[in-house]
Amino acid sequence: MRVVTLFCLAPTGTTLVDRLRSGDPRALARAISTVENRTPGWSDLLKALFPYTGKARVIGLTGPPGAGKSTLVDQLAKHYRNKKENHTIGIIAVDPTSPYTGGAILGDRIRMQDHYNDPGIYIRSMATRGSLGGLARATADAATVLDASGRDLIMIETVGVGQDEVEIVRLADVTIVILVPGMGDDVQTIKAGIMEIADIFVINKSDREGAESVEREIRALQSLATRHDHWTPPIVKTVASEGVGTKELAEAIAGYEAYLKKENLVFKKTVENWQERLVEMLRDAMLEKARAQMHGSSLERYAAEIAEHKRDPYSLVEEIVGALAKTT
Amino acid sequence: MRVVTLFCLAPTGTTLVDRLRSGDPRALARAISTVENRTPGWSDLLKALFPYTGKARVIGLTGPPGAGKSTLVDQLAKHYRNKKENHTIGIIAVDPTSPYTGGAILGDRIRMQDHYNDPGIYIRSMATRGSLGGLARATADAATVLDASGRDLIMIETVGVGQDEVEIVRLADVTIVILVPGMGDDVQTIKAGIMEIADIFVINKSDREGAESVEREIRALQSLATRHDHWTPPIVKTVASEGVGTKELAEAIAGYEAYLKKENLVFKKTVENWQERLVEMLRDAMLEKARAQMHGSSLERYAAEIAEHKRDPYSLVEEIVGALAKTT
Repeated sequence: MRVVTLFCLAPTGTTLVDRLRSGDPRALARAISTVENRTPGWSDLLKALFPYTGKARVIGLTGPPGAGKSTLVDQLAKHYRNKKENHTIGIIAVDPTSPYTGGAILGDRIRMQDHYNDPGIYIRSMATRGSLGGLARATADAATVLDASGRDLIMIETVGVGQDEVEIVRLADVTIVILVPGMGDDVQTIKAGIMEIADIFVINKSDREGAESVEREIRALQSLATRHDHWTPPIVKTVASEGVGTKELAEAIAGYEAYLKKENLVFKKTVENWQERLVEMLRDAMLEKARAQMHGSSLERYAAEIAEHKRDPYSLVEEIVGALAKTT
Repeated sequence: MRVVTLFCLAPTGTTLVDRLRSGDPRALARAISTVENRTPGWSDLLKALFPYTGKARVIGLTGPPGAGKSTLVDQLAKHYRNKKENHTIGIIAVDPTSPYTGGAILGDRIRMQDHYNDPGIYIRSMATRGSLGGLARATADAATVLDASGRDLIMIETVGVGQDEVEIVRLADVTIVILVPGMGDDVQTIKAGIMEIADIFVINKSDREGAESVEREIRALQSLATRHDHWTPPIVKTVASEGVGTKELAEAIAGYEAYLKKENLVFKKTVENWQERLVEMLRDAMLEKARAQMHGSSLERYAAEIAEHKRDPYSLVEEIVGALAKTT
């Protein structure tokens, strides 16, 4: 367990890692920014933090826009804070953001207000970063930082139903998929995409018409196949805006965690998660190497040659990958 | 323009490329499957087809679940088929799919029925393929095949609001973002994520309450920033299920295409698209190389060592990328 001394900022010589481990919220914010933006030292920081990880429970929550994810996460956070164990909590809200509106920042502020006076809850928004598929990576790294900082529970909340979200919630120990009644004609498609990743289903806004029919549809899809861990995801009905069902959801989460423990699946699941994450990390690292090799100007020149049909992109990519292996 | 002779299947010695170019729909289906599944020869096939590409107009359509994308695409397809120019059309419907329901296949069949007797419309569903970010790549390759086959117009329809969809529609010449009234409390988030990619906004189901308010919100967001091409995306109101607004949408599409031509932006946009696609292609190719190097068994072993905290993943990835560059 090599711990690298990093970021000697304070006159006392304490490192960022030390300050993070002692619970300093500014150190936490700074460490997350460092790994999110990949500012120099990000890699050494993660290496130094890694020995302290693996203790936090990680819960992932996803669902379509308008499902009430933030409200549900807030309710769960309050629930865990009020319980005897007095868990410290880190929330990562993954938001598609925009230079027009600064979506993530706005979201941060709105949500922060509610927990402003509770240092036991740390909330961080993650924004979409370019096209490098870096959001899943950035979220995973932020979770690593929160874990190392000693937070007992990490909740990752993400909007959507796409591959992004699947990748983001994959690093969670427990994945909760939130549906709502009356989602329209694409509801079948959504459910199809997320059946595999849900350990627990929530039907939020369950006081609305159609809740029973959503439940029937989930049950029907579940009857078609058995999970390889033989767990049948329970369906919890909530009305998050009124706090209805939060306790039942927390029990369902505890139930799944107990099941994993009983069946000796905790380690197996951790290994599976790491396998997938390693592939992600490799992809990012390889791409970075490729980009460094082929700097911006030649990229534009190549693109122009392709647009003029002077060159085919498939041969070009083969050439670049081949050249990379030879020269470095 | 080297054309490789491939897939000599028919006794006459005609190649898949020849049959594809002559308009054979089975050759089209086979070629798309070849590039989608990366069956042997996929790369040579794309290289052989590339010289024939660049002629089709590519329209991308995206929006949240339940926005009525399929219906709108069908209406547009009918519109273009009925017009004097009698365009041939290829539709790629990008669907998150599931081993539980085979979502993509179902979708295919349902949509196929409507155009069953019109060989001028070819419809293909693309399913989510593992975690390799391969959906954008597969969609791009399928569009390349359709383009080379001589289809005049390609429409790519994709559900969602995430990074996936942004990548998928990026290869389109014209990107249409479909919104609907009453999308709930995350509507701001969705809009934020897609403001940048929309060349045209559609408010579908515009006979519903709230259409005016969606329009006002789009206008308000637009007023905050100017696009670098100085185009202001128009807002078209439709009721796709009744065919209302289809003609106006087609006019808006033609309007944007005319603007690009007038401002000499067509080539610039093509180059930009290829720059992004090259990065994607590089990422995929590099990852494949990395995976080949580190076969499944060692991946699992590494993941187990990380789970046991015997090894940190950040150093491991650096080692693998370094080793790859040396040995191949």
